[in-house]
Amino acid sequence: MRHVLGIDLGGTKTAGGIVDAGGNVVFSAAVPTPAQAGADSVLRTAAGLAASLLAEAESRGLQVDALGIGSAGVIDSARGIVLSATDSIRGWAGTALTAELSARTGLRCTALNDVHAHALGESWLGAGAGVPSVLFLGMGTGVGGSYVLNGQPLEGASFAAGHTGHLASPFAVESGQPVPCSCGGAGHVEAVASGPGIFALYTRLGGSTAPDTRGVYALAADGDPVAAKALHRGAAAAGSAIGGLANVLDPHIVVVGGGLAFAGPLWWNTMETQARAELLPPLADLLIVPAQLGETAAIRGAARRALTLIPATEGSHA
Amino acid sequence: MRHVLGIDLGGTKTAGGIVDAGGNVVFSAAVPTPAQAGADSVLRTAAGLAASLLAEAESRGLQVDALGIGSAGVIDSARGIVLSATDSIRGWAGTALTAELSARTGLRCTALNDVHAHALGESWLGAGAGVPSVLFLGMGTGVGGSYVLNGQPLEGASFAAGHTGHLASPFAVESGQPVPCSCGGAGHVEAVASGPGIFALYTRLGGSTAPDTRGVYALAADGDPVAAKALHRGAAAAGSAIGGLANVLDPHIVVVGGGLAFAGPLWWNTMETQARAELLPPLADLLIVPAQLGETAAIRGAARRALTLIPATEGSHA
Repeated sequence: MRHVLGIDLGGTKTAGGIVDAGGNVVFSAAVPTPAQAGADSVLRTAAGLAASLLAEAESRGLQVDALGIGSAGVIDSARGIVLSATDSIRGWAGTALTAELSARTGLRCTALNDVHAHALGESWLGAGAGVPSVLFLGMGTGVGGSYVLNGQPLEGASFAAGHTGHLASPFAVESGQPVPCSCGGAGHVEAVASGPGIFALYTRLGGSTAPDTRGVYALAADGDPVAAKALHRGAAAAGSAIGGLANVLDPHIVVVGGGLAFAGPLWWNTMETQARAELLPPLADLLIVPAQLGETAAIRGAARRALTLIPATEGSHA
Repeated sequence: MRHVLGIDLGGTKTAGGIVDAGGNVVFSAAVPTPAQAGADSVLRTAAGLAASLLAEAESRGLQVDALGIGSAGVIDSARGIVLSATDSIRGWAGTALTAELSARTGLRCTALNDVHAHALGESWLGAGAGVPSVLFLGMGTGVGGSYVLNGQPLEGASFAAGHTGHLASPFAVESGQPVPCSCGGAGHVEAVASGPGIFALYTRLGGSTAPDTRGVYALAADGDPVAAKALHRGAAAAGSAIGGLANVLDPHIVVVGGGLAFAGPLWWNTMETQARAELLPPLADLLIVPAQLGETAAIRGAARRALTLIPATEGSHA
C-alpha cells in the first residue's frame, strides 16, 4: 500500500504523520513551530520533523513517495506558495513552501491551507465522510472554515475562500458600534466568537476573575453571570453564522471543529440553538455535528491531497 | 444550430424565449402568471406560452427539441419537482413541473430554481462570462443568490442553496430586536435589504410620503432624510452580506442583479462601499458589477440547462 507524509503546520505546533492510502496514520510526531524565528527556521523545523518520520518509515520498510502539507496562511495550492499570512508566523508570506520542502526532503510536495486540510480530512474519513458536501467550521483561536464539495475544498479565486469568521454578525455590535476584528475590519463573527474574542468580551463586560477563555468557560459553567454572558454571545455568534451559511450553501452536513466545539455543552447547545433559529424550513433536518478526527484531521487532509495530486512512484523514498 | 425553449416562471410574470445553442434569444414573449389561481392554471399558462413560441419557431423553420424552465420555489432539479414555495404562487409546492410541462408541450424538459437560472445565464453570457466562479445576488422583491462554479449553480443537498437573504445582519436589528423576516425567522438580510424591507423600514422610521420602494428611492435621491436613512440601511445590509459571502467563497466576480441593483447610484454606491469594508485584504481587487442580461438572464440560464442536460435530437419538434 502506498504511503505519504502529511504535515500540519500551525502557528504553535508542526505535526506530521505517515499516512497510508486508506487514511490511516501509521505513526506521527509533533514539534513546536518556531513561529517568531522566521520562515527559514519554520521550514527547517518542518523538514527536520519530516526527516525523522521518513527515517522511522524506512526502518519499518515503508516507502513514502510524496509530502502533503497544510499550512497556516493563504496558500496558493497550485504554485505551493504562501500568498499571505498573519503575524502568527513571522515572515511567512512569500515562502515558496513546496519548493523549499521538496528541496529539503527530496519528496514531491503539495500544499494547501491548514483549515482546508482539516476540512478535507474530516470529509474524507471523519464526521463528513460519505456525503457529497460538507460545511466545516473551525472554532478556536480564530474562526475559519471550508466548504468541501465532492472531496475538494473550495479554495477560491485567490485561494482565500473559507474565511467564515469574517462575516458581519449582529452579535459583534456593542452600543451600536462594531467590535474591531483581527482582519482590520469590524463587526465580524471572529471578533466575538473566537476564543480570544470571547475572552476580550468577558473583559469588556467587567469580568476579571478568569485568566483565559478556558477560565471563562469554567466560570460560565459554574453560573457566573458575566462569564455566561460572554460565552453565550460568542457561541450565538458562531451559531448565527453557521445557520446563515447553511442557508446559502445547503450542505449535506455541518462539521464543527476547533477547541470551542469541544469546550462543553454550554457552548455547543447555544451554538446549535442559534444555528437552528436561522435555518430555513427545507434545512430543518440539517445535521450539525462535532469533528471526529481531532489533531490528525489536517495531517490526513494534507496526505489526501498528496495521494490525489501526486502520482505514485515505486521506490522514490525507500 | 440547435434551438431550445427557455422559460422564466415567476410570481408575477411567465416569460419564455427560443434560444439557440450560442445563447441568443431569437424571439421571446411574456404573459402574467395567474399566481393566485393555483398550480394547474400556472402550468396551463406556461404551456400556452410555450405553444405560441413553438408555433412561431415552426413558422420560422426552427426545430426546438427541449425545454428548460427556471421557476420560483425550491426546485428538485434532478426530479423536476417543486419541493416548496412561498405563497407568491398558490399551491405551487408539490407540482411535478417537468412531467407536467413535458405532457403539455411534447418536449423533454428540465427545471431549476429561477434565481439559479438567472445566475447561470449571467455566468454563461453576461457579467460573469469567462471566469470559473461567480457569486450572483438578486436584490429585489426578495433577496436571493447563487454561487456558480465551473458553469454549475450550487443547488445544495436539498436544492435549497442560494438563500443569501437569510443570513443574520447587524443592519436587521432595531432597538436590540431582530426585524421579523419573511421566512419566519428574524434579523435576516432580506428583512431590511429587499424592496419591501426597505419600504417597511421607511414606514417604521416614520416616513409616510412615499407610496412604495421606488418612491422611497426618489425621495432619498432628493435628500429626504427618512427615506435616505431607510435606503442607506437596506443597501448597507446588502453590501455587508455580499462582502461577507465573498470572504467565505472568494469568487472570481460578484454580479448583482434585481431591481435594486439598477435603482441608481445611491443604492449601488452604499452597497459597494459596505461590501468593500467587509473584504479581507486578499480580496481587495474583487470585481462587484451589475448584471448585464436583464430579463433574458433566466430564460437563457434555463435554456442552458436544457442544452447541457438534454441530448439533442433531430426533428423532435419541427
